[in-house]
Amino acid sequence: MKIELSNFLIFAIMVSILSFIEALWLYKWVKKQKSSNSQVLEIGKLIRQGANTFLAKEYKKLAYFCGVVVIFIFLFLPSPVWSGNIIDNIVMALAYICGTIFSAIAGKVGISIATIANVKAAEAAQEGIEKSFMSGFRGGAVMGMAVVGSSLLGVTLIYILTGDTTALLGFSFGASSLALFAKAGGGIFTKTADISADLVGKVELGIPEDDPRNPAVIADNVGDNVGDVAGMGADLFDSNVAAMAAALVMAVALDKTSTNMMNTSMVFCYGAIGLLASIIGVASARIGKNGNPTRALNNSTYVTTAIFGILTFLVTLFFGFEWRIWGASAIGLIIGVVIGIATNYFTDDSKKPVHAVAKSSESGPAFTILSGISYGLISVLPAIVGIALSALVAYKLCEPLGDGYAMFGISMSALGMLSIVGMIISNDAYGPIVDNARGLVEMGELGDKALEITDSLDSAGNTVKAVTKGFAIGAAGLTVIALLGAFISEVNTVALELGKETITNFDIMNPLVFFGLLVGSGIPVVFSAMLMLGVEKNAQRMVDEIHRQFNEIDGLKEGKKGVIPEYDKCISIATDGAMKELIPAGLMAIVATLLVGFIGGVQAIGGFLTGNIISGLLFALFMSNSGGLWDNTKKYVEAGNNGGKGSRAHKSAVVGDTVGDPFKDTAGPSINTQITVVSLVASLMSTIFLTISLFG
Amino acid sequence: MKIELSNFLIFAIMVSILSFIEALWLYKWVKKQKSSNSQVLEIGKLIRQGANTFLAKEYKKLAYFCGVVVIFIFLFLPSPVWSGNIIDNIVMALAYICGTIFSAIAGKVGISIATIANVKAAEAAQEGIEKSFMSGFRGGAVMGMAVVGSSLLGVTLIYILTGDTTALLGFSFGASSLALFAKAGGGIFTKTADISADLVGKVELGIPEDDPRNPAVIADNVGDNVGDVAGMGADLFDSNVAAMAAALVMAVALDKTSTNMMNTSMVFCYGAIGLLASIIGVASARIGKNGNPTRALNNSTYVTTAIFGILTFLVTLFFGFEWRIWGASAIGLIIGVVIGIATNYFTDDSKKPVHAVAKSSESGPAFTILSGISYGLISVLPAIVGIALSALVAYKLCEPLGDGYAMFGISMSALGMLSIVGMIISNDAYGPIVDNARGLVEMGELGDKALEITDSLDSAGNTVKAVTKGFAIGAAGLTVIALLGAFISEVNTVALELGKETITNFDIMNPLVFFGLLVGSGIPVVFSAMLMLGVEKNAQRMVDEIHRQFNEIDGLKEGKKGVIPEYDKCISIATDGAMKELIPAGLMAIVATLLVGFIGGVQAIGGFLTGNIISGLLFALFMSNSGGLWDNTKKYVEAGNNGGKGSRAHKSAVVGDTVGDPFKDTAGPSINTQITVVSLVASLMSTIFLTISLFG
Repeated sequence: MKIELSNFLIFAIMVSILSFIEALWLYKWVKKQKSSNSQVLEIGKLIRQGANTFLAKEYKKLAYFCGVVVIFIFLFLPSPVWSGNIIDNIVMALAYICGTIFSAIAGKVGISIATIANVKAAEAAQEGIEKSFMSGFRGGAVMGMAVVGSSLLGVTLIYILTGDTTALLGFSFGASSLALFAKAGGGIFTKTADISADLVGKVELGIPEDDPRNPAVIADNVGDNVGDVAGMGADLFDSNVAAMAAALVMAVALDKTSTNMMNTSMVFCYGAIGLLASIIGVASARIGKNGNPTRALNNSTYVTTAIFGILTFLVTLFFGFEWRIWGASAIGLIIGVVIGIATNYFTDDSKKPVHAVAKSSESGPAFTILSGISYGLISVLPAIVGIALSALVAYKLCEPLGDGYAMFGISMSALGMLSIVGMIISNDAYGPIVDNARGLVEMGELGDKALEITDSLDSAGNTVKAVTKGFAIGAAGLTVIALLGAFISEVNTVALELGKETITNFDIMNPLVFFGLLVGSGIPVVFSAMLMLGVEKNAQRMVDEIHRQFNEIDGLKEGKKGVIPEYDKCISIATDGAMKELIPAGLMAIVATLLVGFIGGVQAIGGFLTGNIISGLLFALFMSNSGGLWDNTKKYVEAGNNGGKGSRAHKSAVVGDTVGDPFKDTAGPSINTQITVVSLVASLMSTIFLTISLFG
Repeated sequence: MKIELSNFLIFAIMVSILSFIEALWLYKWVKKQKSSNSQVLEIGKLIRQGANTFLAKEYKKLAYFCGVVVIFIFLFLPSPVWSGNIIDNIVMALAYICGTIFSAIAGKVGISIATIANVKAAEAAQEGIEKSFMSGFRGGAVMGMAVVGSSLLGVTLIYILTGDTTALLGFSFGASSLALFAKAGGGIFTKTADISADLVGKVELGIPEDDPRNPAVIADNVGDNVGDVAGMGADLFDSNVAAMAAALVMAVALDKTSTNMMNTSMVFCYGAIGLLASIIGVASARIGKNGNPTRALNNSTYVTTAIFGILTFLVTLFFGFEWRIWGASAIGLIIGVVIGIATNYFTDDSKKPVHAVAKSSESGPAFTILSGISYGLISVLPAIVGIALSALVAYKLCEPLGDGYAMFGISMSALGMLSIVGMIISNDAYGPIVDNARGLVEMGELGDKALEITDSLDSAGNTVKAVTKGFAIGAAGLTVIALLGAFISEVNTVALELGKETITNFDIMNPLVFFGLLVGSGIPVVFSAMLMLGVEKNAQRMVDEIHRQFNEIDGLKEGKKGVIPEYDKCISIATDGAMKELIPAGLMAIVATLLVGFIGGVQAIGGFLTGNIISGLLFALFMSNSGGLWDNTKKYVEAGNNGGKGSRAHKSAVVGDTVGDPFKDTAGPSINTQITVVSLVASLMSTIFLTISLFG
């Protein structure tokens, strides 16, 4: 059948709308679930208010930040306003703004539903696992559908309205800016609250987790939402947009010389099919009366994967798309699953690494740390080799199609890996919702049976999270490789306009490239360290506040009826601190990019991006996996192994878990965003780096 | 004056001999110092025997390993024996054997003197700081002179005898093989013993460090010698030889087209001047009656640096060497000093990082770990930017001299940074000697005054060690960059012979290069993790043995007169375990190199080496600096800060120190060796990778 780009654009828009309809339906379904317990409702309200406070402050800071960036974009991008076409600069600035707004709305929707679904899941747990699971899952799925639907819709609309791929990079940059705030800021927030609550509550006073007397307990539950729901959603919105933007930059360039817009059509078609597969996967998710929640979550992921594989096969056959490109995207999907399974091995509590770390913990916390770090480091290998292999195979597969197809193949491989992102977000957002539900069951005293059920739901969330996190990092890795391709494509477009030499390679033996490689590799390392120090500093502030409240509020420590801590003070500290600690880290990464660009020009930037990707992947994988491993080791010991609760192994495992918290929820996953931001800054600045640089 | 290569070769040999004469003189000086206390002599003897046992076992294992490698070299290198000239293969095999033997002899000499000097320094401490310091320093200097003298002599002789730079790579590979065993094996040994001794002694039983009742105490002291003296010596022997070999490979290639052998002459001349400067620096070292040992050590380093700078300036003027190349080596030396100072900032107990980690420790061990890791990660930046800058400047400085000079400039920059290596080894070997002396003072009950003096000597050793370690890693970084240049040079020589295309670049956008980059970056990560797990496993075995002895030997725990633990059992466990745990890690790195080479050919290997260098530098710096930071934090708290001994901060700091031990003494510094081994394997296998590979 004849390929007509406009048909695929319409198809993409229709699927996006379908995802919104599903989201709305799920939203309503969750909303109409029973909630009658006034105490649970009251606490739920506090959490919702706290999350909204954070979001409001975050979006306000972001607005200032974006204001500055928008002025900068208007003045300099895609080319200085005095030397180019002013309309281009306005379009770019608007695209940037749209990127932030689309992502912000999706985040807001996600938070809204998550802070309803947690209450519903908590109450439903009194009646059994089925409704409770469905409340959690469908709440998460609203977020999944909203994120992927709006990212696909945004990209498609920007493309239709501007027809310009550079504007897509602007849109993507907007999404990245938001992700930086949402993911890194949310990450600092959530761990500040989590660590402080544990430190004073569990360690000093020996009161249980989620005890309502603890002034940080609401902040802790808010943190789950702002870090893991909104933050993670923004992160994957960002990756998804970046992957589509990178693919489209190359596809449009390739289609310039072709008769039809086949490659561009293919990107939209595959993107839409990925979302469609997730829509079906979400709708198909079920759990029996005594079902296994982990299996239910994984099954719907497999359904989605299979649907994507089959549907893309059919459209490729039907429209005569290139099989090699289909192959590249299939490879991406398969490698994604393999990375997920490998990640699971290193964090699953039925596998050797968890058992080994638990055993080491018997000798004291130093051994928990040493063995956890060691297994975390080893866990890097399968993922990194997987990414390397899928890039290599995708490249070699598509190379025979002609110049430029090889890099396009890699971007399609990334898109393949990200195709099931709707499902991934749904599963991922499920985690914090049921984690919250568990807290509500505890605080609302809904009974032991409900606690048991929410515990099992929570544990499934943790297991699935490890897998999806591996997937997300893998996809981000491939995406940034594709962005490197997009960067070259951008540079060469500009170079041709300026009558300069085009770039055909980045030679490692070129000292500028090597200089960039080394410096670039240092950035994610320092970035993650700054975030972790930020968490620590902020936690110190909150610990002081918790102490103050316990000392100054009469009857709080003793749990006197009616005495309520000042929850909002803790929420403010976490919020303000998160923003304060985040900005230097983000600026450092951006300033380093500019410095390297002005010193070494585009060659140095090519190296810089590569170094950034490499060390970013290493540290993101290491930190996420070590963190997950420690978390599950603690749970494994608490389940009665190696001495169980209260034993030496348990005390050590708690130390590991505390170290792992900012590893896995702040630093590790924020690195993705940092890499994307840096890649996009570099791509957008290419004109300027081409004209002004010391050695370049 | 006219440049005559033979004069410089003679000069290099003469300086080497001069260094041996100085070593002999120092050896005799140390030996004639007083030692009369029979208890100290007895324990000293146990340490010496233990170290010799380890060395004997290590060299035996190494002999098997080398046997296999030699057969392999004979069959395949520099080209398969059936297709090339058999003499070349024999020369290569012999060069390899010489590399291992030269390094082994230097290590043996170092151990011999260190296990005498420790006893002398201990007894001298009863009389004051002066003699005690000089015994420690001159003992270390014997090692310094032996290592640098024999590396310079070895390289010069191989060059004179074979005139073949590929044989130099073989010699260097021999040195690397030994370094792998000595540094990584010694690192596992020393930390096995250290951790186990502390765990049972200090933590479980509450007996002091270096208590003679502890069955692991001798192994612990042996560990200082085999890990920090022999291991570190072999490591720097390896770096020094690799730097000279890399520089010579390029110099000889450049001189092929020139009228005189200027570049080759310059390498030998600068190498010899570096050693000469160290000879003078060592001879000039003095400490007053109440002098400051840190200042004494640093002063002699500065003297050496200045002498090297001045002398190379003069010879360059005199012989009309290229000023640009002199500049490159001067840049290397300056950046080396800067890296040392930066490293010092992150580990010095009068600076912010140590204070911050100590403060964090008040909140518990998790915070010690988090802040220590964070500062360790940040500490990577100055060094990595320094290395990047010196490579860039050296390249740009020498580029105008013609094709190939740019990379040669980098290798001369590495040589400049390593020029004062004789002094560095002297200072570095001083550390374990006085550490041992402190142990002997304690075990031999030589009194509080002696303990105080050896404590201050020990502390100076720790401070200086951080600086020299930064230096060593920086130099290794530049060296491996130079080895990358040597690799290309080798590949192209072979390619020309085979009539294949020569390589002019490694393009990051080439998927094979990118594949190599990613996989290569994973290797140091996994390698270091395997070593750390090795330490942990081995420590577990030794802890069991210590428990057994305390349980089974009557009166041991109570310290009954005449009851001696079975020290040798612990030494055997540490030795056997070290070799057992090391081999899989080493094989992993070598096999990965071969796999990548056979899959992707020389292009993939180029990427692989680069990825290996980048992540290797990151992790080596991070681990060494975090470890040093934790070590000094513990000492800082023990000095009475943040609550002092026994406080919560102290308990946390001890956990940090235990985690830091294998970081800084096993994994971190072994990464250098791993990178060199892999680089040399790649260079030596270039012919084979050129002819056989899947995608290449």
